[in-house]
Amino acid sequence: MKHIVVLGAGLVGRVIAIDLAKKSQVTVADKDADRLADLNAYESITTVYTDLSFQNQIQPLIMDADIVVNALPGFMGYETLKTIIQTGKDVVDISFFPQDALELDELARQHNVTAIVDCGVAPGLGNLLLGHHAETMKIDSFVCYVGGLPIERTWPYEYKAPFSPVDVIEEYIRPARLVENCKLVERQALSEPELIDFGELGTLEAFNTDGLRSLVKTMNIPNMKEKTLRYPGHIELMRVLRETGFFSQNPVQVGKAEISPLDLTTKLLLPKWELKRGEKEFTIMKIIIKGKEQGKLKNIEYLLYDEYDVETETHSMARTTGYTCTAAVSLLIDGNYKEKGVLPPELLAKDKDAVSQMLNYLKERKIELQRKELEN
Amino acid sequence: MKHIVVLGAGLVGRVIAIDLAKKSQVTVADKDADRLADLNAYESITTVYTDLSFQNQIQPLIMDADIVVNALPGFMGYETLKTIIQTGKDVVDISFFPQDALELDELARQHNVTAIVDCGVAPGLGNLLLGHHAETMKIDSFVCYVGGLPIERTWPYEYKAPFSPVDVIEEYIRPARLVENCKLVERQALSEPELIDFGELGTLEAFNTDGLRSLVKTMNIPNMKEKTLRYPGHIELMRVLRETGFFSQNPVQVGKAEISPLDLTTKLLLPKWELKRGEKEFTIMKIIIKGKEQGKLKNIEYLLYDEYDVETETHSMARTTGYTCTAAVSLLIDGNYKEKGVLPPELLAKDKDAVSQMLNYLKERKIELQRKELEN
Repeated sequence: MKHIVVLGAGLVGRVIAIDLAKKSQVTVADKDADRLADLNAYESITTVYTDLSFQNQIQPLIMDADIVVNALPGFMGYETLKTIIQTGKDVVDISFFPQDALELDELARQHNVTAIVDCGVAPGLGNLLLGHHAETMKIDSFVCYVGGLPIERTWPYEYKAPFSPVDVIEEYIRPARLVENCKLVERQALSEPELIDFGELGTLEAFNTDGLRSLVKTMNIPNMKEKTLRYPGHIELMRVLRETGFFSQNPVQVGKAEISPLDLTTKLLLPKWELKRGEKEFTIMKIIIKGKEQGKLKNIEYLLYDEYDVETETHSMARTTGYTCTAAVSLLIDGNYKEKGVLPPELLAKDKDAVSQMLNYLKERKIELQRKELEN
Repeated sequence: MKHIVVLGAGLVGRVIAIDLAKKSQVTVADKDADRLADLNAYESITTVYTDLSFQNQIQPLIMDADIVVNALPGFMGYETLKTIIQTGKDVVDISFFPQDALELDELARQHNVTAIVDCGVAPGLGNLLLGHHAETMKIDSFVCYVGGLPIERTWPYEYKAPFSPVDVIEEYIRPARLVENCKLVERQALSEPELIDFGELGTLEAFNTDGLRSLVKTMNIPNMKEKTLRYPGHIELMRVLRETGFFSQNPVQVGKAEISPLDLTTKLLLPKWELKRGEKEFTIMKIIIKGKEQGKLKNIEYLLYDEYDVETETHSMARTTGYTCTAAVSLLIDGNYKEKGVLPPELLAKDKDAVSQMLNYLKERKIELQRKELEN
């Protein structure tokens, strides 16, 4: 039986730990005792209460691990991944840190480590599909539309997030990088709105966000973009708040105090945006890959729709992100995947069997992709 | 020649002073030297640089006046009016303070003073018309739609104000009192939106605000309401900001500081909403009075449209408010109007000649009301 250490027992971390505990011995660590409490009920889970922002806590914790999962918040993700690699442990990372993971590639090879990074739903599953088709197709364009949304649409934002508003707003501020005609271009976040019909789900609104991450480095595709999905109207409200200065981090004098408007805004938005336990939501992802295969034009569409699981009380966001991560962990457990270095899913996808195994793993957990081939 | 003291040389105060200086000796006082500087160019205007928030400054200043105009900000308006009355001076007040002016009625009578209050455009001109018709009609309903808007519609607010955002937001927070079926009822501000077409001006959006003021006490009319006009979309943005907590005055902990969200919001909105010198705007007011006259149903509509005066570089808001005020001052100068006490315009309107004189005065300044009688 393998021993897996999961760093972080947040919404996704806990789902990962529970899933892995079915077949492995799991140790899960977090600085919030409440998050660990009910995980102790699982026989194969051991919990460790510790503050992992102290990097010196990590090495002793993972020393005996066969595989490590980094499910810590983004701001501490990069340093943690570095430590894991330096300890010589294979790792699957879903901390989505802002730094460039590929800069650790050399280090990972030196330590003979497999570090699968950005292995959630998007980035993650989307990259896997793109990488998979890039093996047999000459791809001309890749578009990924993705969003997590509450079932209940409450005025005015019709939005709920299982993480802090500050992380959501970050995506509304940071310029979006996309690839157009082989050039890396920047667009304002929240720009180029599109309305897209999703059948029973109704119409959603898509806009540019900076979600391509590793793809801009790893894939040589002339057109790539990632857009976020929300219920219509959300863009306008976010643009108004941004334009007025509510998302600004520049200190403003208010009375005798000096504050960052963003700090107040995230505080006020928290109760409006907080996805509570038991609140139903869904994940939607639509991927369009166009190009040529054996000289023939191809237009492939994937659609992923996943909903809150009532039985296990698991949020869809945690299911789709967590199970893509554990699918990658399953590759490492089986020992068939032997590539070394830092591997975002599009590189991992060079191994056809690995892709099949991961998609089957997801299917077993009822995360299924509908695939359509359209006439071009 | 009469001597008139104008307290406050803000946007409206200065227009009042300049208008009155044509036929009277005017003293104008303000705590902002910049505001006074160019008024010194007028031969019949004397400027006094003093801080009128010290009530003891007022009495010596107005001692020699025949008539006083109170054009100070609302928060210091009531105390100032009281001092003016106690000094025994006739006064026209456009400070629009939150307190009930009619509570000073007894005091005004004791001091043999005529105190015409709330004498702007709305409240002001609207009340005058209502009071006028109430003399000959049994009025069943009174509706006043009013707004001041920029000519240039700039995203996202399409709104500019010549006063602080905090005063505008105050109208979006305070519950609106209206009279329905003889009962005083409260509605949320920004509620009951209506879209109203104004011909070439396009469609505007009307919503409940607490603008009836003295009318709820002085007029026994079964249905009365006042609604504010904005470009469509403004209500939704204001409701979203209010709902999120950006208009709240309850202190919120932000980092180490404790601030009122409203303070930050007004600071951020100021550059967006600030009506600058030379920026063109207009005033629009539509009044609908329904009832019976000599047993016959009547439905009278007044429409006021006034625009920024390019020649004199005078904002419409200052013109409509200021000239209604100076029209009332002209009654006091002529000495024909002799009623004593606190008189909002609807009570002043009991004097038919006074109404004619004021409307003529406004007409001379190109502020004209279009009147329509509709079939009922």
